[in-house]
Order: sequence, then structure tokens, then C-alpha cells
Amino acid sequence: MTRAELQALVRTIPDFPKPGILFRDITTLLIDGRGFAAAVDALVMRARPHEVTLVAAIEARGFLFGAAVARALGVGVLPVRKAGKLPGPRVGIDYALEYGTDRLEIHEGAVRPGDRALLLDDLIATGGTALATTRLLREAGAEVPAALFAIDLPDLGGADLLRAEGVAVDSLMVFPGH
Amino acid sequence: MTRAELQALVRTIPDFPKPGILFRDITTLLIDGRGFAAAVDALVMRARPHEVTLVAAIEARGFLFGAAVARALGVGVLPVRKAGKLPGPRVGIDYALEYGTDRLEIHEGAVRPGDRALLLDDLIATGGTALATTRLLREAGAEVPAALFAIDLPDLGGADLLRAEGVAVDSLMVFPGH
Repeated sequence: MTRAELQALVRTIPDFPKPGILFRDITTLLIDGRGFAAAVDALVMRARPHEVTLVAAIEARGFLFGAAVARALGVGVLPVRKAGKLPGPRVGIDYALEYGTDRLEIHEGAVRPGDRALLLDDLIATGGTALATTRLLREAGAEVPAALFAIDLPDLGGADLLRAEGVAVDSLMVFPGH
Repeated sequence: MTRAELQALVRTIPDFPKPGILFRDITTLLIDGRGFAAAVDALVMRARPHEVTLVAAIEARGFLFGAAVARALGVGVLPVRKAGKLPGPRVGIDYALEYGTDRLEIHEGAVRPGDRALLLDDLIATGGTALATTRLLREAGAEVPAALFAIDLPDLGGADLLRAEGVAVDSLMVFPGH
């Protein structure tokens, strides 16, 4: 399946979650068996050279790609969750949003010394969430050699921000504009 | 990996989310590459006879098993989400909780006539969420021949409730008590 064919499975919804935003909806790709398989396999192919020991998947849509990629690689999947969702002792990081702040957490001890974590999410826009996750994983003792996304919105600069932190970034689809 | 070995990877956290509850934490299994692979493969083996065309994965932990199982089966994954999370036109169902109600939604048109949906979640307890999802999928036009869970808490009766609705239910691990 070509990049154009994959991209054609993504639906664009105007004015969600707020006026002026073109929301790239991957659920139309997810429910397509051929499309979902092609997307997961392409992510796995891009992941292999980084020899990761763990996939860090960001709640909630990142779980969908992250878990499938982790199984294909034969490594575990680490859920990176919003505050208060994880039941055990946690370590977390606060990060700035457009208005206010948010917090991401992982379980204490979930990252082991020497772990090489692949960051995985459905989409990178401004990169705030991905950057905070990278820092959280590194503080917990993991290397973060690479981050993969189904979709990159390059005009919002997130991928470049991550690259400046020393993370190799790749994506399956690129949508210009916001 | 035996059922006992798999079960040993699940951590039990007392008094979460409230006093008296023993929370079965699957994140310790998820981050174990061998354990996660064994769990996904065992779910896939149980899924195959039902010849499903779609995996309906319940937000958020259900996404982790559901997506990996869907990729292995070569079918799509349908995210069943809490109210207000999906960007497109939605169909939903309200269902009763211990206190108050909750709502689950899928995208309109995401289920196609003739779809055979496998319901997938990390855990079944009282079965309220699974039963509501089954009804929502059927109202949308799908058959729901089977539901799979990583963990069953049989004393809470959810699996039996689903079976009474004509859904074949299986799980990888069983924890007695609450």
C-alpha cells in the first residue's frame, strides 16, 4: 500500500475539536483491515533498525499503534497515561499546553536500566506531549533513540523539536497545514 | 507460557480505585515482552474460530490488546470510546454504573452490514461496559459472536451476563474474588 493510498484512508474533519482546526481522523484507517496492517507493518519496518527493548505508547490513540508494533517486535508496551489513571506508584512530568498544563505518568520501575524505548503516537503536531514523554522516559533511565508517528503535521514543528533533542523521528503520512 | 506464569505477571494493588478493591494491574504483564506476546498470541488463537471481520476494542486498556490482536488477524480495529472523544458523527449507548450512568460511542458507519465483531477488553468484572458495547455493535448492524478478555473476575458475573446474550466468552486468566 502506497503512502497516498494510506493517506486516502484518513478522514479530515473540519472544526474539531475547535473552529479552524482540520482534524485528521485515523479511525477510518484503523477499521480497514488492509490499511491497518499496512500501517503497522510500515511502522515496524521503521522501528527495527533502532533495536528497541520497549514501546512507549501515549494514551489513548497511541495505544492502538503502539501495542501492535510492540507485539510484532516481540517487546513490551509501556502505557504513558494521563494523571491519575495508573494504579501503582508513579513518576510523572508536567508540561505546558496552549492554555494551562497537563501531566503524563508511567509506573515507577516500569523502565529498566538499559531500556531503549521507542516513542509511539498516532500524530505529532506541536510536539509538546512527545517531548514531555521523551524527558519522562529519560529521567526514568531509558534511552529514547526514536519516535514514530502515523501522521506528522510538519508545519507545527513538533518533529523538528524532537530531533533537536536527539530523537530520530519518522512518520507514515505527512499533512501540510494545521 | 502457562496460565500460571502469565497470571504471575499481573500485579495486585489493594484499595484501588477505592478501599476494599483488589485492582488487577496488567501493566506489569504489558511491559514484559515475552508475557505480552504470549497473551496476544493466546487471544488470537481463541479468536480465530469465530472468523471475525473486526475487533471492537474498548477504551483505553482494551486498545492495547485489541489492536495487537486485530493486526495478527488481519482485520481492522474499531475504537469504542467514552462520550465526546470521537471526532465524527457518532452513535452511542448509555449504561448504568454503580452510581450514575456512562456513555460509549462508535463512529456512525464504522460497522458495515455483515461485520462480525470480536469484543476485546483487558478485564471483565460486572460486565456493564461489555454488555453495553455488545448492544451498541448489534444496533449498528454487526454480529457479536464472541468476547475475549485478558482477565475474568468470575465472581462478579459479567461473563455469564454476556453469555446469556448469546456471546461466546473466554479469557486468559481468572481471578476469584473481587
